Amino acid sequence: MAGHPGTGFAETDETSPYGIEMGVRYPKLSVDEALDAAQAGMKAWRDAGIDARTGVCLEALARLNARSFELAHAVQHTTGQAFMMAFQAGGTHAQDRGLEAVAYAYREMTATPAVARWEKPQGKNPPLVMDKHFKVVPRGVAAMIGVSTFPTWNGYPGLFASLVTGNPVIVKPHPATVLPLAITVEVVREVLAEAGFDPNLAVLLTDTSADPVAKDLCLRPAVKVIDFTGSNAFGEWLERNAHQAQVYTEKAGVNAVVVDDFADVKGMGRNLAFALSLYAGQMCTTPQNIFVPKDGIAVGDERMSFDEVAQVLAGAVDKFLSDPERAVNVLGAIQAPATAERVEAARDLGRILLDSRAIGHPEFPDARIRTPLMLAVDAAETDVYREERFGPISFVVACADIDDALAKWRETVAENGAITAGLYADRRETQAKAEEVAQEVGVALSVNLTGGVYVNQTAAFSDFHATGANPAANAALVDSAFVANRFRVVEVRYPAEAEAGQAAA
Amino acid sequence: MAGHPGTGFAETDETSPYGIEMGVRYPKLSVDEALDAAQAGMKAWRDAGIDARTGVCLEALARLNARSFELAHAVQHTTGQAFMMAFQAGGTHAQDRGLEAVAYAYREMTATPAVARWEKPQGKNPPLVMDKHFKVVPRGVAAMIGVSTFPTWNGYPGLFASLVTGNPVIVKPHPATVLPLAITVEVVREVLAEAGFDPNLAVLLTDTSADPVAKDLCLRPAVKVIDFTGSNAFGEWLERNAHQAQVYTEKAGVNAVVVDDFADVKGMGRNLAFALSLYAGQMCTTPQNIFVPKDGIAVGDERMSFDEVAQVLAGAVDKFLSDPERAVNVLGAIQAPATAERVEAARDLGRILLDSRAIGHPEFPDARIRTPLMLAVDAAETDVYREERFGPISFVVACADIDDALAKWRETVAENGAITAGLYADRRETQAKAEEVAQEVGVALSVNLTGGVYVNQTAAFSDFHATGANPAANAALVDSAFVANRFRVVEVRYPAEAEAGQAAA
Repeated sequence: MAGHPGTGFAETDETSPYGIEMGVRYPKLSVDEALDAAQAGMKAWRDAGIDARTGVCLEALARLNARSFELAHAVQHTTGQAFMMAFQAGGTHAQDRGLEAVAYAYREMTATPAVARWEKPQGKNPPLVMDKHFKVVPRGVAAMIGVSTFPTWNGYPGLFASLVTGNPVIVKPHPATVLPLAITVEVVREVLAEAGFDPNLAVLLTDTSADPVAKDLCLRPAVKVIDFTGSNAFGEWLERNAHQAQVYTEKAGVNAVVVDDFADVKGMGRNLAFALSLYAGQMCTTPQNIFVPKDGIAVGDERMSFDEVAQVLAGAVDKFLSDPERAVNVLGAIQAPATAERVEAARDLGRILLDSRAIGHPEFPDARIRTPLMLAVDAAETDVYREERFGPISFVVACADIDDALAKWRETVAENGAITAGLYADRRETQAKAEEVAQEVGVALSVNLTGGVYVNQTAAFSDFHATGANPAANAALVDSAFVANRFRVVEVRYPAEAEAGQAAA
Repeated sequence: MAGHPGTGFAETDETSPYGIEMGVRYPKLSVDEALDAAQAGMKAWRDAGIDARTGVCLEALARLNARSFELAHAVQHTTGQAFMMAFQAGGTHAQDRGLEAVAYAYREMTATPAVARWEKPQGKNPPLVMDKHFKVVPRGVAAMIGVSTFPTWNGYPGLFASLVTGNPVIVKPHPATVLPLAITVEVVREVLAEAGFDPNLAVLLTDTSADPVAKDLCLRPAVKVIDFTGSNAFGEWLERNAHQAQVYTEKAGVNAVVVDDFADVKGMGRNLAFALSLYAGQMCTTPQNIFVPKDGIAVGDERMSFDEVAQVLAGAVDKFLSDPERAVNVLGAIQAPATAERVEAARDLGRILLDSRAIGHPEFPDARIRTPLMLAVDAAETDVYREERFGPISFVVACADIDDALAKWRETVAENGAITAGLYADRRETQAKAEEVAQEVGVALSVNLTGGVYVNQTAAFSDFHATGANPAANAALVDSAFVANRFRVVEVRYPAEAEAGQAAA
């Protein structure tokens, strides 16, 4: 990257879940070097104003869009996503979310006028007249801490929201997933430089899992905004320790689907088969727990037992993945060896409905690919299902009845958070109860999805991702709360006479 | 208060700085009782929706407005503000700020539509069509921790922002300043009940300084929003410990005025005399440090030495307060005995320019009234002036030159925060430098005030109070950031077909 601070090349943990040699090298720099470089251009970036910053961000997004195929390959070979998904979620949809963040931030920044004349009547005397200037100022340096699975999709909202509001951004990718964010930083730097700004307003800072830098970076007094997607442990540590910064976190959760009487069980099976298979359950939005009444459900005029419902679901997944070529293009590869190990270890946690298999990839012989593991458990076995078991692992949980199913869903989300929830229910009464739970525990709810919309997918400008209202995340992508605290407004006021003198000076 | 939870009457520390017997009694209840009562009506308040909640808040503000004279007396005799100021700042202007908070919150809540139909083209196939419902949900219980000096003005923004966004509010007044907020809670409860809601959505929880309850209250898991105005110690404790809540703090700061070459020194003197005298310097916006070049300034075509500038300022204050009747109506009384003691102790901190006097009140013989103490110090004596010395204490600080004056201002604000800043400067160059400092340390700047606008006064819907960008406060009254995090949006989506079925059901 032209002119990027640092000396030589950094070590990372970057390897491809598809088994190819990555061999990409990145600049090596210290936290101090990153902070010094990032801050140098901050004043000029602030003074450029809202429109200029917005223009730079839009141009960067347009150029990232033009590099979507390259980004798709980069996302595929770091995260393990299949190519089509890497193109969509890692490319265009990530750009959508970045654009959404710029749009929300623009709305909030421009809600206060740049200049306003204020007059206060004084009875018989002339009015008091003041000219008031409102200047949008940045908070300071922003740190964007990337995640291994969705570096661009989860990263762009914070990156662009911080940048457009005037904050330099230090991008610290997950050590295993550097390339997509490195390309991103390169593009942003290129546009910054062309527009006459310091390219170091966007800096890449890599590390390794053996020698991490995020804690050091995130406690520096100059760092005033932090975006993080990843583990509960680090997210909570940030929330409790990085007092000098605004901290936005997305952590783990236990997403659930609740099944009540529902006529189109086949449609449910098809829909959930895709939802459970997509990227082998490595989405923060993938359902983990499927709560079903133990006495079964009504399917139109017939009864279907719990075991039959479980078999419909497991059978649908099995059938969906029966063609290996289609399977690998949906499942992608397992990003981390630990996730593959977790699947192995999970086999003993319940009665196996569908076993996980390793399957081969026609193009990448060393790809780490696993099909979903589905287990049946009883609602009493809360230790098994109440925490997140990241990866292609799901539980069909036998509950006393539909109210118990709703209660178990509520308890797990209140305790450990969730980003998505699904409901299959023909009865309006159950839908209403589920809507109430969704509002109480603050989780987005998708009802009766049987077609081409899936519980684990959201669209920018139309769906919020997470709510910020349960332990899985303290913010939503993207709402006003996500952008409004990234800048401040400083007012400077002059009596109108003096102002006239000032303008003439 | 009709139906207010609790048993019997609580002890408080309420006494009037004017020396009259207060003798008001308040409900006695525990933190547990307050929390239980507040939460009971939360669901119905949420489900009432944005418009109904906004209507209740507007009606409460209108009724508070109708009780402005009563509120003025209550504010006067708890805070020590003179009657006219208590009527304005404690009555109508506080209502303005409350209305402003409701308006900003309404804007943010309604920025997301309640329902939206979403269509996604599918090539030759029919489009995917979803109906998406967006529900504004509260964060939980809000705690509003009142301040002794401006219970309503500083309290209403948080109180009404929390309430209109769906959160029940527990109002915990300063133990010495209960009555204004008790009247407020009574009015809010009355309107809630008339509109068919649980009046316990607004609860008064009093305490004493010997047996405080704020720490206990603010760490309860049910408390999700906290508004606090008061000491640095407790504000920082909240920011560092109340992790379960959104915390909005306004703490102490050291406000400054910087004086450069300026032709209308008399106008400056008149203006600052009022600014320094108003409520005897007990405003969080009162200037404390007046930085002046030690070699003096140009006043039009003449030079004026540092001592002459200092004498102009001290003389203007002395003259302004020479009529005791006018003096007491500007100064008001000293809210806390500790503030009067602080004035006594401050006499040794510098060369006395104007000594503080105790003066009598024609109506209230026991009123605790003090005139401003003004001291001259050298810029090197940073220990004297860099921290807040709350009360009618100010320092005229001799600086090497104007750049040193700007630097000292910058350092004190960066270190200890400020809510206001003033500048007197004819030179555009100095104005520009000061604007830069204001943006860097995030403080509102008033330039060349010589008429009827004062550095320590801000108007709702026109000026922000504080910026949230320096240590004096982590939020501004009132901007988007102040309201956007008090609620969350929960999305519920249905395929449009199912939705049609739902509507028919």
